[in-house]
Amino acid sequence: MISFLDRLRQAQAATAEANIDALLITPGADLRWLVGYNALPLERLTCLAIPAAGDPFLVVPKLEELAARGSGANEVVDIVTHGETDDAFGLTARRLKDALGGHPGSLAISDRMWAQATLRWIELNPQATIRLAGDVLRPLRLVKSIDEVSALRAAGAAIDSVHARMGDWLRPGRTERAVARDIADAIIAAGHEQVNFVIVASGPNAASPHHHVSDRTIESGDPVVVDIGGAMPDGYCSDCTRTYAVGGEPPGDFSAYYSVLLAAQEASCGAVRPGVTAEAVDAAARDIIAAAGLGEAFVHRTGHGIGLEEHEEPWIVAGNSQPLRAGMTFSIEPGIYLPGLHGARIEDIVVCTDEGVERLDVIDRDLVVLSG
Amino acid sequence: MISFLDRLRQAQAATAEANIDALLITPGADLRWLVGYNALPLERLTCLAIPAAGDPFLVVPKLEELAARGSGANEVVDIVTHGETDDAFGLTARRLKDALGGHPGSLAISDRMWAQATLRWIELNPQATIRLAGDVLRPLRLVKSIDEVSALRAAGAAIDSVHARMGDWLRPGRTERAVARDIADAIIAAGHEQVNFVIVASGPNAASPHHHVSDRTIESGDPVVVDIGGAMPDGYCSDCTRTYAVGGEPPGDFSAYYSVLLAAQEASCGAVRPGVTAEAVDAAARDIIAAAGLGEAFVHRTGHGIGLEEHEEPWIVAGNSQPLRAGMTFSIEPGIYLPGLHGARIEDIVVCTDEGVERLDVIDRDLVVLSG
Repeated sequence: MISFLDRLRQAQAATAEANIDALLITPGADLRWLVGYNALPLERLTCLAIPAAGDPFLVVPKLEELAARGSGANEVVDIVTHGETDDAFGLTARRLKDALGGHPGSLAISDRMWAQATLRWIELNPQATIRLAGDVLRPLRLVKSIDEVSALRAAGAAIDSVHARMGDWLRPGRTERAVARDIADAIIAAGHEQVNFVIVASGPNAASPHHHVSDRTIESGDPVVVDIGGAMPDGYCSDCTRTYAVGGEPPGDFSAYYSVLLAAQEASCGAVRPGVTAEAVDAAARDIIAAAGLGEAFVHRTGHGIGLEEHEEPWIVAGNSQPLRAGMTFSIEPGIYLPGLHGARIEDIVVCTDEGVERLDVIDRDLVVLSG
Repeated sequence: MISFLDRLRQAQAATAEANIDALLITPGADLRWLVGYNALPLERLTCLAIPAAGDPFLVVPKLEELAARGSGANEVVDIVTHGETDDAFGLTARRLKDALGGHPGSLAISDRMWAQATLRWIELNPQATIRLAGDVLRPLRLVKSIDEVSALRAAGAAIDSVHARMGDWLRPGRTERAVARDIADAIIAAGHEQVNFVIVASGPNAASPHHHVSDRTIESGDPVVVDIGGAMPDGYCSDCTRTYAVGGEPPGDFSAYYSVLLAAQEASCGAVRPGVTAEAVDAAARDIIAAAGLGEAFVHRTGHGIGLEEHEEPWIVAGNSQPLRAGMTFSIEPGIYLPGLHGARIEDIVVCTDEGVERLDVIDRDLVVLSG
């Protein structure tokens, strides 16, 4: 059972530890993690103020008050509302000053706070040093609790069930866009509250790692990269990629490098255990692809953390010497991309465990040929 | 025909005029408006740098290069890529310094730039004053071109066509969530590329202006506020609210205040013409609702601008003495909310014209009773 009160206390302790007077948290994953409020990022100020000592309070526009209370946030923090013509920043700054017993000397703000808010806080607190709240909150969010891993496991099962039905939709003669629509419906039907992204990259589009969808008609023999994810009602995200061959056998060279890719993904997952560095997990995949002479074709990092955000720390990338810890959850998603021709990617979400690794996506990783 | 080159030149002229050395634009509507690139807001840096004089350039992660080029942005700006382990901020700062012939003395950054980028720019440019790029770009984006108004008219027709089918889905015994799913599918089927939001607020939920959906089962006689919008493939947004009575006649007091609301919405639209202030348009609706003794029940501003963003300037709100100009596009959406009971809202997108006003949502505004 998630205790927001515990999380707030952890955040306050970490804030004090970092010699920061207060955190200012605008809508986003940190806010949801701290008090359970999945606030809309709107132009009106919503801001959770957490003094290192004392009572946190949540400033919301009056017309968001019911939504804020509906989230249950009011059970752990005071709700302070502002009207359409109030100075919401001034109001927050005054109340924070009262809570701190003076002007803050240091503030930490949400990593993704909008500049229009950031510059206001700087203007209102010229005496304060301003840092990123992520420095305080990231270590708390990085290692998932058992409940969070369960939530991610459920998200993984949901997205796997969508991949399991891919033969229903992915056929020659259909456009990527039409297939993507069916997939989006299925992501919701599988229990997600929200579709985060649907990538259907066919033929030469599969050579672009972040291609989304287009009106290209899928042709017989096309390799198709399908990378999909959503957020469950509790906010935890799924993300799983499989590559399909549609309408018959793919080109011969494709099958050859797909085997290399599969071996690389297996090796990378196999490398995961506590104490191993993030970059070693990246290297485990990269070395195999490079040994096959395809190093130049693997143009991105191996993975990213996942939780309440699709992309969060840890980054599984060269140069990240952070050691893994049990409870960290992230993607392992090597890819091979041949511009102008085709490409492939295989992605699972995994959790680092005391023993090594558990995959949260368990659907078959062998190349699936959909005969159409 | 939209000319991005013209827009870039306008932006450079406005930047020079404001005595700013350069704009730094991260993913969002400004970037799309300037160069046509609908970039994903990812943790990797994507940033358009526009020196007041000289050549703008777009910094993108290497693995977004194909997506950036696919947008056509490379036809108007140089594309500069960075790899997974490069210092993207340092690279951008160095190139900008070269373009300016020295360190910038002033920079303007995207209004919604993430703090993690904002603080890096401040750190890399301790000598520079930092402002919001919106101060420069807002006046350019505020008055829409004929092509932009056409795009918004098409978006309005698309969302109107979804409201026209509401009787297919909105019935007693169904949950808000189930109805919202059908609506979301219809928003896409009507030509939108993306669903921006679906609000189905039934019975007491209709008393919360920003309620989205819940598992509440719609009951016979419920008033239901349906506020929906999406983005068309060209990025321009729709946003239209109608209130329905489902499964039979609504409570008597509801019908009474609905008539007041309708009169208020008509009066507000009728007040729109060049030179009239935004706050006068707000007051036109508010005065009628207040005269009926319901002033306290209209808890939000009357409207917001719309274009490439669902919510942008001008704000139709008390205190905004900005005079309207022909080509401004915004919502007129008064509401009446009775906490614990029910509520209603009527919303159209309108464009201020030389002659007065044109509604871009034209579907009937009388209360529709869906007999179920």
